[in-house]
Amino acid sequence: MPMMTGDQYRASLVDGRRCYIDGELVDDPASHPLLASAVTSVAATYDRFYDPDPQAFHPMYLVPRSSEDMQRRVEAMGHSDITAGTTAACMALVEVAPALGKLRPEYRDRIYEFVEACKAADLRCSEAITDAKGHRRRRPSQQDDPDFYVRIVDRQRDGIVISGSKMHITGAPLVHEQVVLPTKSMKPGEEDYAVACSVPTNAEGLTIVNTTNAPRGDDTRHFPISHRTNMPEGLLIFDNVFVPNERVFLDGETSHAASLAHALGLWERTNAVAYSGSSADRLVGLAALLAEMSGASDRADIRDLLSEMAIFATMCRAGWEAAMKNATVNEDGTLSPASIYISASKYYNAELHGKMIDILHDIAGALLVTAPTVADWENEEIGADIREQLGGQGGYSAEERLKLLHYVRDLTADTYGGWIAVTESLAGGGQYAQRLVTLRHYDLNEAKRLAKRAVGIGGELAEAPQAAGVVV
Amino acid sequence: MPMMTGDQYRASLVDGRRCYIDGELVDDPASHPLLASAVTSVAATYDRFYDPDPQAFHPMYLVPRSSEDMQRRVEAMGHSDITAGTTAACMALVEVAPALGKLRPEYRDRIYEFVEACKAADLRCSEAITDAKGHRRRRPSQQDDPDFYVRIVDRQRDGIVISGSKMHITGAPLVHEQVVLPTKSMKPGEEDYAVACSVPTNAEGLTIVNTTNAPRGDDTRHFPISHRTNMPEGLLIFDNVFVPNERVFLDGETSHAASLAHALGLWERTNAVAYSGSSADRLVGLAALLAEMSGASDRADIRDLLSEMAIFATMCRAGWEAAMKNATVNEDGTLSPASIYISASKYYNAELHGKMIDILHDIAGALLVTAPTVADWENEEIGADIREQLGGQGGYSAEERLKLLHYVRDLTADTYGGWIAVTESLAGGGQYAQRLVTLRHYDLNEAKRLAKRAVGIGGELAEAPQAAGVVV
Amino acid sequence: MPMMTGDQYRASLVDGRRCYIDGELVDDPASHPLLASAVTSVAATYDRFYDPDPQAFHPMYLVPRSSEDMQRRVEAMGHSDITAGTTAACMALVEVAPALGKLRPEYRDRIYEFVEACKAADLRCSEAITDAKGHRRRRPSQQDDPDFYVRIVDRQRDGIVISGSKMHITGAPLVHEQVVLPTKSMKPGEEDYAVACSVPTNAEGLTIVNTTNAPRGDDTRHFPISHRTNMPEGLLIFDNVFVPNERVFLDGETSHAASLAHALGLWERTNAVAYSGSSADRLVGLAALLAEMSGASDRADIRDLLSEMAIFATMCRAGWEAAMKNATVNEDGTLSPASIYISASKYYNAELHGKMIDILHDIAGALLVTAPTVADWENEEIGADIREQLGGQGGYSAEERLKLLHYVRDLTADTYGGWIAVTESLAGGGQYAQRLVTLRHYDLNEAKRLAKRAVGIGGELAEAPQAAGVVV
Amino acid sequence: MPMMTGDQYRASLVDGRRCYIDGELVDDPASHPLLASAVTSVAATYDRFYDPDPQAFHPMYLVPRSSEDMQRRVEAMGHSDITAGTTAACMALVEVAPALGKLRPEYRDRIYEFVEACKAADLRCSEAITDAKGHRRRRPSQQDDPDFYVRIVDRQRDGIVISGSKMHITGAPLVHEQVVLPTKSMKPGEEDYAVACSVPTNAEGLTIVNTTNAPRGDDTRHFPISHRTNMPEGLLIFDNVFVPNERVFLDGETSHAASLAHALGLWERTNAVAYSGSSADRLVGLAALLAEMSGASDRADIRDLLSEMAIFATMCRAGWEAAMKNATVNEDGTLSPASIYISASKYYNAELHGKMIDILHDIAGALLVTAPTVADWENEEIGADIREQLGGQGGYSAEERLKLLHYVRDLTADTYGGWIAVTESLAGGGQYAQRLVTLRHYDLNEAKRLAKRAVGIGGELAEAPQAAGVVV
Repeated sequence: MPMMTGDQYRASLVDGRRCYIDGELVDDPASHPLLASAVTSVAATYDRFYDPDPQAFHPMYLVPRSSEDMQRRVEAMGHSDITAGTTAACMALVEVAPALGKLRPEYRDRIYEFVEACKAADLRCSEAITDAKGHRRRRPSQQDDPDFYVRIVDRQRDGIVISGSKMHITGAPLVHEQVVLPTKSMKPGEEDYAVACSVPTNAEGLTIVNTTNAPRGDDTRHFPISHRTNMPEGLLIFDNVFVPNERVFLDGETSHAASLAHALGLWERTNAVAYSGSSADRLVGLAALLAEMSGASDRADIRDLLSEMAIFATMCRAGWEAAMKNATVNEDGTLSPASIYISASKYYNAELHGKMIDILHDIAGALLVTAPTVADWENEEIGADIREQLGGQGGYSAEERLKLLHYVRDLTADTYGGWIAVTESLAGGGQYAQRLVTLRHYDLNEAKRLAKRAVGIGGELAEAPQAAGVVV
Repeated sequence: MPMMTGDQYRASLVDGRRCYIDGELVDDPASHPLLASAVTSVAATYDRFYDPDPQAFHPMYLVPRSSEDMQRRVEAMGHSDITAGTTAACMALVEVAPALGKLRPEYRDRIYEFVEACKAADLRCSEAITDAKGHRRRRPSQQDDPDFYVRIVDRQRDGIVISGSKMHITGAPLVHEQVVLPTKSMKPGEEDYAVACSVPTNAEGLTIVNTTNAPRGDDTRHFPISHRTNMPEGLLIFDNVFVPNERVFLDGETSHAASLAHALGLWERTNAVAYSGSSADRLVGLAALLAEMSGASDRADIRDLLSEMAIFATMCRAGWEAAMKNATVNEDGTLSPASIYISASKYYNAELHGKMIDILHDIAGALLVTAPTVADWENEEIGADIREQLGGQGGYSAEERLKLLHYVRDLTADTYGGWIAVTESLAGGGQYAQRLVTLRHYDLNEAKRLAKRAVGIGGELAEAPQAAGVVV
Repeated sequence: MPMMTGDQYRASLVDGRRCYIDGELVDDPASHPLLASAVTSVAATYDRFYDPDPQAFHPMYLVPRSSEDMQRRVEAMGHSDITAGTTAACMALVEVAPALGKLRPEYRDRIYEFVEACKAADLRCSEAITDAKGHRRRRPSQQDDPDFYVRIVDRQRDGIVISGSKMHITGAPLVHEQVVLPTKSMKPGEEDYAVACSVPTNAEGLTIVNTTNAPRGDDTRHFPISHRTNMPEGLLIFDNVFVPNERVFLDGETSHAASLAHALGLWERTNAVAYSGSSADRLVGLAALLAEMSGASDRADIRDLLSEMAIFATMCRAGWEAAMKNATVNEDGTLSPASIYISASKYYNAELHGKMIDILHDIAGALLVTAPTVADWENEEIGADIREQLGGQGGYSAEERLKLLHYVRDLTADTYGGWIAVTESLAGGGQYAQRLVTLRHYDLNEAKRLAKRAVGIGGELAEAPQAAGVVV
Repeated sequence: MPMMTGDQYRASLVDGRRCYIDGELVDDPASHPLLASAVTSVAATYDRFYDPDPQAFHPMYLVPRSSEDMQRRVEAMGHSDITAGTTAACMALVEVAPALGKLRPEYRDRIYEFVEACKAADLRCSEAITDAKGHRRRRPSQQDDPDFYVRIVDRQRDGIVISGSKMHITGAPLVHEQVVLPTKSMKPGEEDYAVACSVPTNAEGLTIVNTTNAPRGDDTRHFPISHRTNMPEGLLIFDNVFVPNERVFLDGETSHAASLAHALGLWERTNAVAYSGSSADRLVGLAALLAEMSGASDRADIRDLLSEMAIFATMCRAGWEAAMKNATVNEDGTLSPASIYISASKYYNAELHGKMIDILHDIAGALLVTAPTVADWENEEIGADIREQLGGQGGYSAEERLKLLHYVRDLTADTYGGWIAVTESLAGGGQYAQRLVTLRHYDLNEAKRLAKRAVGIGGELAEAPQAAGVVV
């Protein structure tokens, strides 16, 4: 099967799917004002890699066996949340495939077949993981409403039937397959909740209610990033959706629910960490330009702020390099970045990102939100005065300065910025959850062994105490 | 002269003022979609205190002589940015009046006359302080363009003529008087920049270019706060504006430029600090409700987060109480809150506010930005499913939960929230400037005396060393 | 009974008490090298307030009925950990006396008699609260060893018999009465652990094992603070100690164990908060002097650091002022500072104190630990060179600079400083516990009410939305 | 020349050097109570690598050409501050040698000869860099006293004569060569201050005044780390010291003063960063053991604290791995770790280290400073009670628990701990300086280019906007 072009992709979305936004049913996402630019950005990821060779496939479908593979995939992944999400969903399945194969060989086979089918048809997938959850301190089986977690309501000869919902599914109305995974570990007795499968977006019984970070104002020049890079998030409502056996990857084995959730978590975090260095560098650059344009680059306090940002960006990059340097390989030969570095970096990144934004705002000043709009500075009556008063220093024009300010506002202090700030730290469960994930990957026993040896508990004393200037 | 009603206020804005927004000239602010709700909120502050008695006046014009006066004024001030700004502008003038009177007695007289006139006619004023500034490391007189700071371009028999601009002036198109103050200290040779005066909004030669944090989406239910409490910010462009002598409060005395800037700064910070405790309490309450609605109130990590917020809110309140307890009185009997406590609290508040928001987001989860809209849950096809899946715990309905989420998003993670985050910490110059302001108010000599006595430098040794458990 | 002089106090300590330090039994604390200076500092608090009038008493025994009383008491309290501890122990009992009186009237009477007796005999008391605790996740009654919490092992006609231990009891070997209080709430079935009483230090069966922050080096000039203000901490071991009924304040009423612990906690925190402002000011002063002496006072980065310290010191002071302004009165008329402000300030203080010290170190530089000793600069061969090379700027001599450096090292970067750093934040249970305590005192329901009104949940919507610039 | 044994090293220190401590001249460091254990620890680094082969040399003298070399060197370096310092001094010279050779070829030759001579004779070197500095805002040439910076006071045919002092020189009295380097960049006119050379410790005219972090108490069991790993710091006073031309590496070329300072800085930071991961792991381990011993390992708040520490330790390690992965090679083939990662990691490490210690203390509790001494628990009368009351949970004995507590106290909350806390963050100039160093190494232009491309300033717009979920 050949790859799709951008236009073929657009057409493929008109398949009877039931997607809503602002209370309205959308027949063709590509033509809805709040979805069109997201469709366009995904279409671009088709056109960019399009190759008419029938054997060709999108590089995100390359299962990495070496760090060069991984690097290529990382480059391909970064162009859209949807390529990133498709990668995460497929890689999580592939990574756990050998383990699932030990439970039931057909799970492993179905996973590889499913990923091959997606690759062949050049499809896109979501990561449908987070359930509605109801009462947070109760188990799935103890909720007032049994549908607060997606569950198997019927098991038939040729497939299963599921109900429930999955929340904040990035790009849900713009993909072809919804990859459903358990949101956390399940216990014996919760077999109906231990379910992983894939469901086509236009499946009978599936409804998607969407929100978006697309800008609602008319003048797109006022939203230089968000009018191009926005993405909907869907609430998937499964109402007795039938899933044929070929697309069922876990059905009742509670022991393995968590491993799918963890594998997906690793890949979600990997997506975040892989670009954190260059994203942070860009923030440093934005701050440096803002300072230049107001003639403040050489002020001691501004240099100091920039250096804090530079340190942050460097540590982000260090985390990713260490993760790649220590990548691990599963028994089918699939490479994964080292989870301990990915986890710690994801946490560090989310922890410090807000501080970066604060510094950026501090350097931008209140003009960030009070800068006249493009329509103002293009107005004949007032444009000249605005251009005079807000002219940039360092050889930059007022237009460049205002453009920069609007970019930073859109990125960090408007609808899109607010959305990013929230999802940045909460995707994957908040910082509390991230800390626990890191501890799970950390070798605490080795740390205790080091400590015992240093103190001289239970055996030998560390022979040569380390140098005084070197902490311990 | 009697007070104005809300409707009289609306009418008073149609006076020939030249206000722009989105590149468009606005004849009547009350009828422009991006300004109407701001006008409505100001009109409410008229109706609320309206009294037909010709001697009646708005309580914000009460010059405080006691802490009871101050408390009443604080209550009146808080209903709108514009009442707060009017208060700050008038109080700054009144506070410095005795000192200016020593330079030239007519300055003091003019200030009292101006404030009386505003009170009698029930007017509203802006605080027009921040200049465009051009190159940040150069003095006003060294800029490439002499108009980067507002300056006197001509001195005539009966008045002065000014040019230049003032940036991010809250509510500028909705007030009657623009109170122009120097943005910082001036040096000999910068006499033309040492200018304070008041200019009617419809003055010949004055143009105001506005931006706003009003929401741009159509469904106001999606913006529960910002569709009611938004406010424009104006860029004032003065093009040879004539100011009659009666409205000139400083003309060339560089020695006193800074004292006006500092007095205004104190009152701006006072506005921020006065309500910081109750604002913070509301954030704690929002967080507590969010936790209840998802059944997480009793989780140890959530309790811990709430307690951090409670500490923050308590310290905010403590700062304000200490400022009021230590209020000072100038020689004309005007009361001002103690500047050292106001400065430190303003800094603390801005420093910690972002952390409060982070905690709020952590407790809200990503649903904060992905919650279906009101239009979704009122839709016949999908409403019931949404209400089932997102039903609140603790006896709250899905509607209440969604309303709460939209409120918190609008407040903290959307256009309005981004705007607040920026202006919150940058109003009055950023945290670096706030720190220096605090140091200026702090009694460093007394601190050094304490230290010398403790160490025994230059004389007596502190006789009784303080207890060990008590830090020093 | 008349007050004691310092010498009478010294003599009173030789009463057969069993105190150990460094594995050695101490007969007379005043003559032991590691205890002598602590005894001297306590003796000074006797001499300072000595009055031969038989009705006279130490001001710390003034039960405060007004804020002037409180202020006088605070001044008297601060001279020693032991006056502070005596105050806390007695005030905690007095505060809870009315409530205990409702359980059994004799509890209230015994408390007032006990405090009167201490006052009359001019005694000093400890706060013996923290148990050994054994396994932290198990209740007192579930421990492997029943003595991990102090408990009643026998109830006799005229008194009770207790066993177990109490840890880190400040000044234990230097007081006359050990006031034993429950360390936390107790549950039904734990009646033997719900015990409060007072035990004379020389009671049969009581042994005290001590540690100290007194310096171990010989040259006291090297330890300018710690050779004067050190204090021992005792581990009290109760081995079947008999306590007569008159000194038993709680015996088995589990419902009231917590209220004693909480009352003591409030007073311990009060001790910390009352002086936090002046302690912090002193740190600011030390930092300012260090900067002056190296010619760095005017550097922008140093000014910025000092201003951070000034903000911290100001907020500490604000917390205390707010606590005093909102003091509460129990039904017997005893005044207590407002617990919510005390708790929040204690947390804030401990949280920021380390940051103050970091700044102080940053300004001091590594010379803080590498400065030559007094013996060096007084040496004939090398003294002149040292004085030349380390001469202070700003008119300060090398001696003054070195004295200052040694003071700061002793205070913050040597044995004493390490001790303070630990006890500063851990006295009363660590920051996690402090946060929970604050939440307990915080009015969360009122915060939720504010939030509901703002959002419009369950009734009226807040009528006038608060100003945009003021957070909301 | 063969390598030295530990005993030969001890003997080599009795060479007429003039070293003082506590105002006393020391003839033989190995026999002075405050220096002996430091000498022993250095002697151990001789014995450990001793090899009678006349060609053998200590591995720290291996100039690294590959990352395996570097790894071996790192292992050898870590055993003592003195091996680390010798490495830093020699590597800084070697790294800059090619550049200095371009100024004057003999500089390069002398450096290689000097390092060869040290290697052949198995010597140890100091890094003598920090001057007394006098007034911090004045240039070396503008000081009241010209000797506030080390300078050339005479130039003779066969050498130069220097005067002035160098501060906090780690291990100065225990090395053979004091490697003198300029403390910062010099300007034209400051030729006398642009001096690098090496001076034998027993040179005529050189006096060393020392301080130490060795414990002053008698019972070494109370100081489990510091009685083994302490190190003196010397103040070097040069009084007309003659340096022969062969040992002069820079004489007046102000243009190259900074490059030596920077090279040394890189190696000092490298020493800190190389071990930061394992040091941090050890702290995690100590915290985990403390929690186990009090039965608190499973508490949610404790798990959360441990995970914060684990993240910190992981990021430390990531920084080092990234620095090694991106190591650079100078034109003579010498390998250096990538400075940007070293700088950022050093800053991060110092920034977070204090937080690690706070967590460690939080978990330890106040028992950290109030734990009975070894002498107490070995005492017959009281030992059994102490062992009962302080028995560890999780199968640990009271002895093990107390040993652990004393270790952590000595490491973090006593003389040694205070010293480490200060030098940890201040070695190399404080965090403000570290930030600026990082900014110097950071590619700000590339960051600006990224930002311009994203915004569309001055040319192309970044074609494919990056994914929404990925920050920018």
